[in-house]
Amino acid sequence: MLKLICVVTLACSIAPAQEKSIAGDWIVDFDYLGSKMYDRTLIQDTNGSISGTLLGQRFVGTRTGTKILFRGTTGGAEGEATLTRDGFRGSEIIPSGPQDPHPLRLTFVATRVPPRPSRPPLTHTFKPSVFYRSFSALNPPALNIAPGDTVRTETVDNAGIDGENIRRTAGGDPQTGPFYVDSAMPGDVLAVHILRLTLNRDTAQSDDVISYTAMNRDLAVMTKDNKSAVTWHLDRNRMVAWPEGRSGHLSAFEVPLHPMLGGIGTATIPGPPAPPTFDSGNSGGNMDFNEVGAGATVYLPVNVPGALLYLGDAHALQGDGELNGAALETSMDVEFSVDLIPNKNIKTPRVETPDYIAAIGFDGSVDGALKAATDSMADWLAKDYDLTASEIGQVLGVAAEYRVAEVADRNAGVALKIRKDLLLKLKK
Amino acid sequence: MLKLICVVTLACSIAPAQEKSIAGDWIVDFDYLGSKMYDRTLIQDTNGSISGTLLGQRFVGTRTGTKILFRGTTGGAEGEATLTRDGFRGSEIIPSGPQDPHPLRLTFVATRVPPRPSRPPLTHTFKPSVFYRSFSALNPPALNIAPGDTVRTETVDNAGIDGENIRRTAGGDPQTGPFYVDSAMPGDVLAVHILRLTLNRDTAQSDDVISYTAMNRDLAVMTKDNKSAVTWHLDRNRMVAWPEGRSGHLSAFEVPLHPMLGGIGTATIPGPPAPPTFDSGNSGGNMDFNEVGAGATVYLPVNVPGALLYLGDAHALQGDGELNGAALETSMDVEFSVDLIPNKNIKTPRVETPDYIAAIGFDGSVDGALKAATDSMADWLAKDYDLTASEIGQVLGVAAEYRVAEVADRNAGVALKIRKDLLLKLKK
Amino acid sequence: MLKLICVVTLACSIAPAQEKSIAGDWIVDFDYLGSKMYDRTLIQDTNGSISGTLLGQRFVGTRTGTKILFRGTTGGAEGEATLTRDGFRGSEIIPSGPQDPHPLRLTFVATRVPPRPSRPPLTHTFKPSVFYRSFSALNPPALNIAPGDTVRTETVDNAGIDGENIRRTAGGDPQTGPFYVDSAMPGDVLAVHILRLTLNRDTAQSDDVISYTAMNRDLAVMTKDNKSAVTWHLDRNRMVAWPEGRSGHLSAFEVPLHPMLGGIGTATIPGPPAPPTFDSGNSGGNMDFNEVGAGATVYLPVNVPGALLYLGDAHALQGDGELNGAALETSMDVEFSVDLIPNKNIKTPRVETPDYIAAIGFDGSVDGALKAATDSMADWLAKDYDLTASEIGQVLGVAAEYRVAEVADRNAGVALKIRKDLLLKLKK
Amino acid sequence: MLKLICVVTLACSIAPAQEKSIAGDWIVDFDYLGSKMYDRTLIQDTNGSISGTLLGQRFVGTRTGTKILFRGTTGGAEGEATLTRDGFRGSEIIPSGPQDPHPLRLTFVATRVPPRPSRPPLTHTFKPSVFYRSFSALNPPALNIAPGDTVRTETVDNAGIDGENIRRTAGGDPQTGPFYVDSAMPGDVLAVHILRLTLNRDTAQSDDVISYTAMNRDLAVMTKDNKSAVTWHLDRNRMVAWPEGRSGHLSAFEVPLHPMLGGIGTATIPGPPAPPTFDSGNSGGNMDFNEVGAGATVYLPVNVPGALLYLGDAHALQGDGELNGAALETSMDVEFSVDLIPNKNIKTPRVETPDYIAAIGFDGSVDGALKAATDSMADWLAKDYDLTASEIGQVLGVAAEYRVAEVADRNAGVALKIRKDLLLKLKK
Repeated sequence: MLKLICVVTLACSIAPAQEKSIAGDWIVDFDYLGSKMYDRTLIQDTNGSISGTLLGQRFVGTRTGTKILFRGTTGGAEGEATLTRDGFRGSEIIPSGPQDPHPLRLTFVATRVPPRPSRPPLTHTFKPSVFYRSFSALNPPALNIAPGDTVRTETVDNAGIDGENIRRTAGGDPQTGPFYVDSAMPGDVLAVHILRLTLNRDTAQSDDVISYTAMNRDLAVMTKDNKSAVTWHLDRNRMVAWPEGRSGHLSAFEVPLHPMLGGIGTATIPGPPAPPTFDSGNSGGNMDFNEVGAGATVYLPVNVPGALLYLGDAHALQGDGELNGAALETSMDVEFSVDLIPNKNIKTPRVETPDYIAAIGFDGSVDGALKAATDSMADWLAKDYDLTASEIGQVLGVAAEYRVAEVADRNAGVALKIRKDLLLKLKK
Repeated sequence: MLKLICVVTLACSIAPAQEKSIAGDWIVDFDYLGSKMYDRTLIQDTNGSISGTLLGQRFVGTRTGTKILFRGTTGGAEGEATLTRDGFRGSEIIPSGPQDPHPLRLTFVATRVPPRPSRPPLTHTFKPSVFYRSFSALNPPALNIAPGDTVRTETVDNAGIDGENIRRTAGGDPQTGPFYVDSAMPGDVLAVHILRLTLNRDTAQSDDVISYTAMNRDLAVMTKDNKSAVTWHLDRNRMVAWPEGRSGHLSAFEVPLHPMLGGIGTATIPGPPAPPTFDSGNSGGNMDFNEVGAGATVYLPVNVPGALLYLGDAHALQGDGELNGAALETSMDVEFSVDLIPNKNIKTPRVETPDYIAAIGFDGSVDGALKAATDSMADWLAKDYDLTASEIGQVLGVAAEYRVAEVADRNAGVALKIRKDLLLKLKK
Repeated sequence: MLKLICVVTLACSIAPAQEKSIAGDWIVDFDYLGSKMYDRTLIQDTNGSISGTLLGQRFVGTRTGTKILFRGTTGGAEGEATLTRDGFRGSEIIPSGPQDPHPLRLTFVATRVPPRPSRPPLTHTFKPSVFYRSFSALNPPALNIAPGDTVRTETVDNAGIDGENIRRTAGGDPQTGPFYVDSAMPGDVLAVHILRLTLNRDTAQSDDVISYTAMNRDLAVMTKDNKSAVTWHLDRNRMVAWPEGRSGHLSAFEVPLHPMLGGIGTATIPGPPAPPTFDSGNSGGNMDFNEVGAGATVYLPVNVPGALLYLGDAHALQGDGELNGAALETSMDVEFSVDLIPNKNIKTPRVETPDYIAAIGFDGSVDGALKAATDSMADWLAKDYDLTASEIGQVLGVAAEYRVAEVADRNAGVALKIRKDLLLKLKK
Repeated sequence: MLKLICVVTLACSIAPAQEKSIAGDWIVDFDYLGSKMYDRTLIQDTNGSISGTLLGQRFVGTRTGTKILFRGTTGGAEGEATLTRDGFRGSEIIPSGPQDPHPLRLTFVATRVPPRPSRPPLTHTFKPSVFYRSFSALNPPALNIAPGDTVRTETVDNAGIDGENIRRTAGGDPQTGPFYVDSAMPGDVLAVHILRLTLNRDTAQSDDVISYTAMNRDLAVMTKDNKSAVTWHLDRNRMVAWPEGRSGHLSAFEVPLHPMLGGIGTATIPGPPAPPTFDSGNSGGNMDFNEVGAGATVYLPVNVPGALLYLGDAHALQGDGELNGAALETSMDVEFSVDLIPNKNIKTPRVETPDYIAAIGFDGSVDGALKAATDSMADWLAKDYDLTASEIGQVLGVAAEYRVAEVADRNAGVALKIRKDLLLKLKK
């Protein structure tokens, strides 16, 4: 099992100085033997007498000239740091303790939480030339944008084919981005408003397989020879699709299109390998929720400075569960804008549509994903609507709507939705 | 494990007679040491030379006067029967065989599949005085109706309280019925058209508990003290509900009502104990699917002569999953009509609404229920729409919509829905 | 959803009498509109001033002559009763309240918890002539026994065949019993010591099917034509079995026998239909745990007076999970003794073998059954070993052993086992 | 969804040459836009007329001088290559087809499957200085070894602490290795014989948390405050452990040690990010199966040349399921040898102990892991024991033993075990 426990407690000694208060909001970027950990802390500085909270522990200390000394009010951790042009940097020793018997020396670099950029919003047009296959914080930013900005860009399909039917990269849900959002800091939430999803070619790829996670024995035997790729024709005028060469009982079959983004996620914290782009989790990723279309807003945690937003795996249409493993996979022109909600914690990705809010839970089973979605929505109602546990029970009992986003990938995804008009009737 | 294997194969000897052909459709009612088994068979009778299929095995034989002799074309089973006024009755010996090493003697009574009654449809008004708590074939019919008939009746709430707030029976989802549908025979499907569901009082009962099947640890701890009953006021003019004595953040909260039947099912085959009315399965029962409202048709298998339809556990409103264990539980006036689809096999209950068809799967987990629903819908598309396995894969991939009916009971229930306008585009 | 909420609170008025104290342990047998509820209560009676707890609520009252009056210390319930030769009987009104808005009138009959019979233990030899197919409290007792007694009896196989290869009853896991255990009262635990399981014929029935709950698509397709019954020869001298007519790769195959009882359970409370004998749950039943052999003790809750113990569905051998649906199904001679643990609550059935204790959890999924087993074992360690929550975590982390009892039935069963030699090192 | 479909079919034209036959076993290393794909093929070469199978498709062609031309016998693929000193390299075009509408150009390098090294086995002593946190094929080999060789090395604990109690690396199940096994090629199976696991310090780290995946509501509430680290003392003479500072009911508690490797795995194919070392799957990894101790052999697929074997996350003792998330985590001296089984395909990791064979299934739920284990064992019995589907059903029904390896990680792990003495009785 992964085990990463750190008690950081900090101690100070001598007297203060005037020069340069460190009061305010800081991002502390710890290096833990090569792994990153970000912590966000509000520091008080009264004439050099400093205090705050680091990694969940209260500390007190002093700032004297460029020297900072601090210690935990409990636990015995001690640290020192030096002011730099941009902040301060130093190290601390966390002694052995009940949580971890081995002392731990961490180095860190602290920078102030940057202010939200104040320039007027811009609209960027970005033509990607490189695509990525992991939600990694180590991939170089493709474009710097600011909260409020709009981006017009494009995605290739799950196999790497673009709108000109040209293979641009290997398959595996390659993503456009990452977009670095100025002033986004760990602990913020990134809101991505999906303004427009425009089909840019006449075909989508799919198949006739049904995921074994959605079937019992009879259907397994019935579909044992299903393994054909199916190309769907996308009629962009009438916004319908049909299987190319449709014949038999499907000779007149067609379905209305509903363009959506299967993949949207923020970079995860460096340390363990980043998840591949065909995986999903609490930073989003390959969510395959068919309500993530134009008009939707997706809320994702910011794990690293700049958030590093990725998008891809667009679907011209997808039934619940993405039963074929593939949906109608195609390339797309995408227009979105971003915003930041500072210092807010969310349990799982959230989606807002014109009519609904939705908390999306992920797990290796549909049962588990449903549980995660319920926990997340309860947390949402508690934090943003101040509901008590009893009130949450009453509201969920009458208002919960579950949607099955994905059953064909490693994580199943389930959304718990609530109508916004009902929530308007909640007293804050 | 339950084990009930019978190979019935039948053999005949002597010569035929003219008197009374047994050609036609028959229901053979086997008594297997006190358990019932019904079999439906089409018998050929050419001047007393008879043949047909019984319990999946082909037989041939003779009818001489009132005497019938038959034997299986394979397997060695032998039987004899005597013509009676209404059909014939007899017994047969199934020899030991690969499927069961013990010879088995069954007695049976065979009656012709009755014709659909030809009288014009009637509308019955039925005031129940007794309520039942199992979907048993042994409960006496409350009312005989014919296909095409309409029934106006009422249900008490899950605790046995009626529209006058009078306790009429013990709790546990007591049901109105059973309704005996003339000419309904095992192997048919009963279609129940729900014409009207009318609230008949101003309150519904619920609570603030959340089912542990929908939560992880955090929500379990958050709601550990939730255990209050909550009475909801039903405003029948505005068709909205609110918790009585609503206060706090719910002081202005209200939700639109959507009356539905939580329980609708046909009697199961006698033998093992019938399921209690708070259980669900492939004969329906406590399905708790919130789209079973006015305008919906529910298709259920007929397991015993007369089908024996039960209804109850009406909800003024229910969120997906019936998270509180209880929904807004109330009594209701119910108007429905019935119809029969002869000799049709369905895997799980089906529901049809104005816009959708839905196959409902049941299992002890949501994952399992979703699998059962997919298998059932695939079977539906194969049988009623003639789709091939590949076509089924293609249609489900773009058109499947899953709904979570129930997670709080022993069986979870999941519905796989498809829009009817899409199905109209399938060539037969 | 099933809803059965009763707040019983009781009130008294006038003055006491000397004649006949009601102090002591009582079983109160409530009739709730035809459903039973048993409650066990310890009553204080100080010169006619009485008090106790009923259905979880404290009451006070008076006994005057043969008249008892009582009322709840909270909630407003009121009751009256009359002393009879064997106890007292009466009724009470539970007013509407937060838990249930409808007043409820219950009648009841109270009898003293009987003393454990004092006669020396007997050994009964019981030849069953009737077999049952539900764990019902309404089936007439087959034999009255006392705690400490030993019973020698026999079971038929899952299809109703006995040791002479004679079909004695219909299939479906018919059970021997029920055995009425004198002085067993609701709230007790019944301990069943399985002393001997003796094969009494040379064959067992099984098949080659694998349960779909244990397979993914590949195995579903591989075994799609598996549907043969397989008769196993039981070599009772060498205690091994092989498939009759074994050939091919199995031509020399044989496996050691390990006789066990698939079914062992106590009757459930009357009201809803009793579970069929192919079902399992917290009163045991069709547990199919292959460690329930000679030398094991099974602990089951007593739900009704006399406990009403059933046994059946013996297996000459069963792999984990009972993958074929059937194990090596055979008849058996069974010798067992019973004992009672008064007034003890257990969450799920418990099994004790020479080396292990095991808590068995049941659920519609293996995941859920594993959760139930863990909850039950934690409860066991807390109640019988006084462990704290932290100690329970530490012990389970090093000592938990999970066994999969059953995956082929409606309920999966998982056992959490702990070695008894480890438990000996726990300080009480 | 990930989508990587390639149909390689190859075509040849002109006449052969004598010089240098390419007959024999080859590994073809494809580069697919930066992703690797390995294919193993047996080529016939009769005087320059060549044929074989590539990526599942038959090809024919010619070898003329150093020039190779080939084409698929179906599908229209065409390729060319040039002989080099070590093999040949070239490219091919796969035309659009039913499986993928986009032509694809792959480059490749082909080398002969190397012979198994013929030198006598060596014993290596390897002291690791670097540890890895992903099962990546891109990490540089730490040591080259040959089939038959023995390695003596050591592992740090899950938090990176070694036998001297020195932190050597960051936590997260860091692994020793990777070991490059000479001549191991994709398509082989690597057998790792665990010869000795020796504790090298007196403490192990664990905690008192119970994984929420193993609990229902009651246990969640009971253990809501469990969050303490627990250090266990390892008594290496008596081979028992107890919690340090044990007190309360655990004051005399101790448990026998059973050293095991939680982590053992081969590198995965480059392309998507490699799995982190706290994850598990069909190439092994963090399997946490407590029977992987001294005397066990673990069989793992070889995905890349050299196999690249990793080991780590040793446990002094672990209960089933690793309920605390951590087991008794400690460093260890490890001695193992390796062997190769050429050209063999296994569905999931296999483990062999002195008495058992075990197939290990992984999935996001215990139900799913059990299904995967059953599929894998059925495949094993079919391939290595030649059993028919019916025979597999019969053997599993009597011989299956399931063990729950892991429930606390992203993947649950379940082992299906069969006694080897039973398998000895199967006729080949």
